[in-house]
Amino acid sequence: MLAVLLFAAACVCHTAARYTPDWTSLDARPLPSWYDEAKLGIFIHWGVFSVPGFGSEWFWWHWQGEQPPDRACVDYMSKNYPPGFSYPEFAPHFHAQFFDPEEWADIFKASGAKYVVLTAKHHEGFTNWESPNSWNWNSVDTGPHRDLVGDLGEAVRSRSLHYGLYNSLYEWFHPLYLFDKKNGFKTQKYVMQKLLPELYNMIVRYKPEVLWSDGDWEAPDTYWNSTEFLAWLYNDSPVKDTVVTNDRWGAGCGCKHGGYYNCDDKYTPGHLVKHKWEKCTSVDTLSWGYRRNMKLSEMMPLPTIIVDLVQTVALGGNYLLNVGPTPDGMIPTLFEERLRGVGAWLDINGEAIYASKPWRVQAENSTIPVWYTSKGTTVYAIMTAKPPNPKLKLLKPKTSAATKVTLLGNPKPLSWSPVQPSGGIVVQLPELPYTPGQAWTLKLENIQ
Amino acid sequence: MLAVLLFAAACVCHTAARYTPDWTSLDARPLPSWYDEAKLGIFIHWGVFSVPGFGSEWFWWHWQGEQPPDRACVDYMSKNYPPGFSYPEFAPHFHAQFFDPEEWADIFKASGAKYVVLTAKHHEGFTNWESPNSWNWNSVDTGPHRDLVGDLGEAVRSRSLHYGLYNSLYEWFHPLYLFDKKNGFKTQKYVMQKLLPELYNMIVRYKPEVLWSDGDWEAPDTYWNSTEFLAWLYNDSPVKDTVVTNDRWGAGCGCKHGGYYNCDDKYTPGHLVKHKWEKCTSVDTLSWGYRRNMKLSEMMPLPTIIVDLVQTVALGGNYLLNVGPTPDGMIPTLFEERLRGVGAWLDINGEAIYASKPWRVQAENSTIPVWYTSKGTTVYAIMTAKPPNPKLKLLKPKTSAATKVTLLGNPKPLSWSPVQPSGGIVVQLPELPYTPGQAWTLKLENIQ
Amino acid sequence: MLAVLLFAAACVCHTAARYTPDWTSLDARPLPSWYDEAKLGIFIHWGVFSVPGFGSEWFWWHWQGEQPPDRACVDYMSKNYPPGFSYPEFAPHFHAQFFDPEEWADIFKASGAKYVVLTAKHHEGFTNWESPNSWNWNSVDTGPHRDLVGDLGEAVRSRSLHYGLYNSLYEWFHPLYLFDKKNGFKTQKYVMQKLLPELYNMIVRYKPEVLWSDGDWEAPDTYWNSTEFLAWLYNDSPVKDTVVTNDRWGAGCGCKHGGYYNCDDKYTPGHLVKHKWEKCTSVDTLSWGYRRNMKLSEMMPLPTIIVDLVQTVALGGNYLLNVGPTPDGMIPTLFEERLRGVGAWLDINGEAIYASKPWRVQAENSTIPVWYTSKGTTVYAIMTAKPPNPKLKLLKPKTSAATKVTLLGNPKPLSWSPVQPSGGIVVQLPELPYTPGQAWTLKLENIQ
Amino acid sequence: MLAVLLFAAACVCHTAARYTPDWTSLDARPLPSWYDEAKLGIFIHWGVFSVPGFGSEWFWWHWQGEQPPDRACVDYMSKNYPPGFSYPEFAPHFHAQFFDPEEWADIFKASGAKYVVLTAKHHEGFTNWESPNSWNWNSVDTGPHRDLVGDLGEAVRSRSLHYGLYNSLYEWFHPLYLFDKKNGFKTQKYVMQKLLPELYNMIVRYKPEVLWSDGDWEAPDTYWNSTEFLAWLYNDSPVKDTVVTNDRWGAGCGCKHGGYYNCDDKYTPGHLVKHKWEKCTSVDTLSWGYRRNMKLSEMMPLPTIIVDLVQTVALGGNYLLNVGPTPDGMIPTLFEERLRGVGAWLDINGEAIYASKPWRVQAENSTIPVWYTSKGTTVYAIMTAKPPNPKLKLLKPKTSAATKVTLLGNPKPLSWSPVQPSGGIVVQLPELPYTPGQAWTLKLENIQ
Repeated sequence: MLAVLLFAAACVCHTAARYTPDWTSLDARPLPSWYDEAKLGIFIHWGVFSVPGFGSEWFWWHWQGEQPPDRACVDYMSKNYPPGFSYPEFAPHFHAQFFDPEEWADIFKASGAKYVVLTAKHHEGFTNWESPNSWNWNSVDTGPHRDLVGDLGEAVRSRSLHYGLYNSLYEWFHPLYLFDKKNGFKTQKYVMQKLLPELYNMIVRYKPEVLWSDGDWEAPDTYWNSTEFLAWLYNDSPVKDTVVTNDRWGAGCGCKHGGYYNCDDKYTPGHLVKHKWEKCTSVDTLSWGYRRNMKLSEMMPLPTIIVDLVQTVALGGNYLLNVGPTPDGMIPTLFEERLRGVGAWLDINGEAIYASKPWRVQAENSTIPVWYTSKGTTVYAIMTAKPPNPKLKLLKPKTSAATKVTLLGNPKPLSWSPVQPSGGIVVQLPELPYTPGQAWTLKLENIQ
Repeated sequence: MLAVLLFAAACVCHTAARYTPDWTSLDARPLPSWYDEAKLGIFIHWGVFSVPGFGSEWFWWHWQGEQPPDRACVDYMSKNYPPGFSYPEFAPHFHAQFFDPEEWADIFKASGAKYVVLTAKHHEGFTNWESPNSWNWNSVDTGPHRDLVGDLGEAVRSRSLHYGLYNSLYEWFHPLYLFDKKNGFKTQKYVMQKLLPELYNMIVRYKPEVLWSDGDWEAPDTYWNSTEFLAWLYNDSPVKDTVVTNDRWGAGCGCKHGGYYNCDDKYTPGHLVKHKWEKCTSVDTLSWGYRRNMKLSEMMPLPTIIVDLVQTVALGGNYLLNVGPTPDGMIPTLFEERLRGVGAWLDINGEAIYASKPWRVQAENSTIPVWYTSKGTTVYAIMTAKPPNPKLKLLKPKTSAATKVTLLGNPKPLSWSPVQPSGGIVVQLPELPYTPGQAWTLKLENIQ
Repeated sequence: MLAVLLFAAACVCHTAARYTPDWTSLDARPLPSWYDEAKLGIFIHWGVFSVPGFGSEWFWWHWQGEQPPDRACVDYMSKNYPPGFSYPEFAPHFHAQFFDPEEWADIFKASGAKYVVLTAKHHEGFTNWESPNSWNWNSVDTGPHRDLVGDLGEAVRSRSLHYGLYNSLYEWFHPLYLFDKKNGFKTQKYVMQKLLPELYNMIVRYKPEVLWSDGDWEAPDTYWNSTEFLAWLYNDSPVKDTVVTNDRWGAGCGCKHGGYYNCDDKYTPGHLVKHKWEKCTSVDTLSWGYRRNMKLSEMMPLPTIIVDLVQTVALGGNYLLNVGPTPDGMIPTLFEERLRGVGAWLDINGEAIYASKPWRVQAENSTIPVWYTSKGTTVYAIMTAKPPNPKLKLLKPKTSAATKVTLLGNPKPLSWSPVQPSGGIVVQLPELPYTPGQAWTLKLENIQ
Repeated sequence: MLAVLLFAAACVCHTAARYTPDWTSLDARPLPSWYDEAKLGIFIHWGVFSVPGFGSEWFWWHWQGEQPPDRACVDYMSKNYPPGFSYPEFAPHFHAQFFDPEEWADIFKASGAKYVVLTAKHHEGFTNWESPNSWNWNSVDTGPHRDLVGDLGEAVRSRSLHYGLYNSLYEWFHPLYLFDKKNGFKTQKYVMQKLLPELYNMIVRYKPEVLWSDGDWEAPDTYWNSTEFLAWLYNDSPVKDTVVTNDRWGAGCGCKHGGYYNCDDKYTPGHLVKHKWEKCTSVDTLSWGYRRNMKLSEMMPLPTIIVDLVQTVALGGNYLLNVGPTPDGMIPTLFEERLRGVGAWLDINGEAIYASKPWRVQAENSTIPVWYTSKGTTVYAIMTAKPPNPKLKLLKPKTSAATKVTLLGNPKPLSWSPVQPSGGIVVQLPELPYTPGQAWTLKLENIQ
């Protein structure tokens, strides 16, 4: 995280300068500080794919692009729809009749998340706002008849959450994209006539603080005009000072260029990453979009989410947890329960998460798995299982006379003893309270 | 429960005799023993009402019968459907495309329930089987195009669960019923041409072991021909030896005549009831049928369900827990989680529930709420909260030297001491294991 | 027609007597006189079959009953509808949003017809009125949400047209009918629980003056309880004095029992029939119900209709000309044109049709086909082609000095001369006026 | 017509030259000769507007653009569709399941027409081909799932008919168009990003021989880039030698610039027009697109069509007769009857129409209305009513000894006499044959 601090310092002196449309310049932009402090975001995949609600948000592609061997989407269509039914014909059934952005925002707030990212446009190309470049293929002209992007943004921001938008660069079946693709991306019809006009418009209109780019992998950044766009975004856009973006800006950019790194979906590095990164993952382990036939065994249990969040933060990442609302506009109750469960856990343990920094050591596992975060000389040891024994030994912290140990949520200081002069501590644990999250935090003050 | 035992004895001598179509005779029939031992059943409300999935399974009535003051169903229709759209037009959208009775039955089995009751026909009149008396208004002729009653029955029975059917006597809008009603129930067109032919047919075809009657309240049992029907059911039907039924057989019959008593929906007597009874209740506190706009705050939390089940059993009742599947044929994941949660709790604590009898004392609440069940001289004290102190005092059990105490799920006997010679026990509790059900059972052997 | 006159006389003396439920008695009932005088009726096939509008009104049967070798309906469904789509699911699309009974009645009136017969219930069983015996399978509960039978009746009667109803005895797929059928029609569940209650109700409610029975052929009249029903219809029903009915009352009844004879659809005897009969036929030669894919070559041209009408009347029949309205509630413009064309022809030539009687000779074809009708000593010779020569010779009329000849529509008497003393006339024709009907009438007064 | 001949001559010398993008150059292009010879074309309005099939093809505009005072479309929607239903949601119901281009082309051929013009894109913007600039708003991506433009073109051309395409310049609700419009047409986003790329693509792909431009009136030709486009069309397009176009290329262009003149819809000049022109009109007098609620009184009778055609040709125009197919893909039978009726009339009278030129005098009306056409010294006098008297006097033809008179369809020469030496002829008519078209042609050879 040293790098981050340096960048933050660099920020001050750079304000007058302008970014040039090349990766050297763009990559040097410090990440706006709110993002690293936020730690937890909510990801929302919502679109026409929510209507069939089968397989995943890749339904269209798995049906009519490249079929996986099981041909499940092909079979589903042939069993349930008339021959010749086409994907755009799902759109009128995207009713969103119960969509109440205030209720959604209440749930997101209650989850303890600090930012919310909505799919403004997924690979299907359907825009959840009235894009003038996507006539009759957007949420105002058909289906919900509503500015989903705008309406959610207002509710989210009124609760002091940051608001971000997901945008897919490519669109599986856009005829201009297919034209360019056929030309080996030597032409840029799609980029010039569709992608960029729409993207600029979206940024200016909705001022997202996260631009979550995706769908970049088939073409190089030069096809997408990524560096030019980012230079504008960082220099001249209305969100130039606050916006963060990720690393999906062209084949080969992932884990290398852009803002924070997403690397792969559900990226789980297993070690400290020097550059700010984000793990996106989904409560429904099989899909980001809503599935009508979800089963409980396919959902992440709350303890799994908590340990995933903790590990991610301990390794320097942010955690972007996804839910797929129904085409009716509801967040399924099980997803709501998970989000509120995370929030309940953070109510007690949030101190160890928000605005924390990775510690000198990220984890140890002498008896149970423990993850570390820190704020200066305060170190948080997050136990992701119940220790078998009330005397918990931790080998990594180095104590001093000033060291003080508490269990978050419990005012009483705990008695402890050093293991060795060179380090280690044995903490006498109280009975651990019930928590559906099944993780507890020891706060160790004045620790090396 | 004395009464039940007497009836059971009576059963032996009655077998050769036949019931006469009067309440004195019918009420004297002993309840088949499987039912009292089962304790937990799953109730399923599924029908055309699942398609709008708004308000409750009473949607049609609240839309076009008597509107509640909020007129929510009227508003919902006028906002979302064309003028003149009629309720029968929902039926084609009852697709049930994901309905897998094996999966449902797995979930029900995993819940620990011993019987399952499906709405074969609710007040809307739509039959979930191909009733010849309900042409084009049943699940084979339209919508699912499938024998839902038959298909679920097979799966349920193959897991050794008992299978029951809910049947509404009245149908809100059946023209023959409305004709009889207009005539002050002096005519019986509906009963003779529709209700009874269908009901006999259903019993013979599906052989339900529970006949869960409902919709009786507008007319007396004489209108419904209830006693004649029950005499047939008990004397000559294919389920005469095993079937149980409830008490909804005509205005004034509830809590008075028939088989076991349901009294009201969600009946919670608060004291021991002499006659076998059943509490039916629903995970969704606002509806029995699926609602598209369910919120978490409206769902019963697992601990609430557990304490409700425990209390019901302690007071001599059975517990029938309801879930409303989607029109797609899925059990919403949150419902699945609740059912599996109950099952997980019963895996450890089921010994205190199944085949238990109410004890001499049903509850005490000296420090925390404790409910009692029993099997002979073994008494189960179910703690529905965590005691503040590891020494738990119970005032009602009378111990002896032979008394032995264990915590279910924990093999080690616990140390205990009597409070006074006249009664009471202090048990030294171990640390209570985490359980999402938040209830624990002490098994006290050799207790008066 | 002598028989008819005798019956009419018989009527006077029979009024006090009652018909007994046997064919001897029922067949002796004189036909109410309005019917023979009316000559032309309009037949309307309208129902759920109008929604697919493919093949014919037998769509359901040809799809799911017995498929013709071409399997056209099966193919149409598999190409255009999702698997599992069922016939009742067409009903919600029977919108009838443009149905204006006043406009329909205007067209029928303009056609010159004197009666109108609507399918109150076709073989599909869907009733175009709110039959209490056909809940949710009628035009008020679903689809049009309207009493089609009642609304059209009012408009038709306000124009002094007689109103009749078509009723199918059998219903292809009614489960109670299928039950009886399986039992070799030894049981009468369908007749007692469905058919008769509905039919009585329909007669009492709508008081049709024609009861056009159909769908009788699979079972004997004894199954249908036909004689009992007709005895009631003739003795006690509200239309006992005016109603006419046809001969479709059980296998073997056609052309033999009942009121007038239909014999087969499109029955064309080719000779004078002693008993009053009716030819029903359809503008669309391939269907009675609306077809979405009608082509001009499949429609009857106006001259074909006129010659068919003329021949039918000349041979003692009534002519019932069918049109199939759209599910939207419109009479296709081509059908309207045909009906108005018939009316325009009747405006001039109606005198030769209405209340006419067959003549001593029905036709001659010395040069062109000529059909005869009569009123006492006035004989009408209807030329159904343009004579090649202005001197038209007719061999059958026997003239006298008092004989007068005119062309209908032309006030001037025509000059004529006898062929031989024993008979025959040569008429000097004027130039025949243009008429889309391509038939002209010579009125010969004082003719033997 | 002198002008036309001059232009035709001019054509020869101009072939090597290129048109410049200005009206002086473009207007000087001679009209390809096939067009004037063709005389009769069929116009087809087919699109998403055919689905509601109400009011007219302007449904969308009259519903959500500017409502006429009767607000009929607004009312229709509020009575028959759910609130919030939007126009694009009609598209999936544009099934075209019966569309058989061979059958259509047979009808068009039978009508005697020599060219066919289909709406490739009407003001709604929906393209009846897979335009890459109209993704998901075209007939391949949704609705018919078929290349309507291509499929019809093939069938039409295989019958030696010329094939033309209608294209609306503006699109009522295209967001880019609305953007330009708001800017007073100072910007050309719509033209550059949507209109022109699509139009070039369409021309190259389908090679229409008529480009029937429309929807030009809100903006000047400079906005539409009309002259540049036409210069390309005439110089470099694949149809540069054969294509004809009309005069709708910008506000003020009508009746002034472009190819032939349409001036207004249903333009009826009443006198000879020097510049080649075309009258477009519709069998349905109230609409160009299909209307579900058409009535006979709103349809053009065949004689009206014939007289309209005759008058148009006599005055130098072409006649483009419109039919609106159903969303199912059928040409309504009444339209088919009209088209075949025109063809039947042309079978006999076509000699007076095809490749004819206006005569010295266009009409006279001494006893009945007579229209003249000519081919050199042969003059055709078309009687559009039946003369009251077999001696028909015409004042305008000047006869000579060589003059010969015949009735088309009748081989025998007719006797005639001059009225005066200075001109006029009296023709002894034979009995005029029946013709539903009610018009007959006298061919006068060797006439001044």
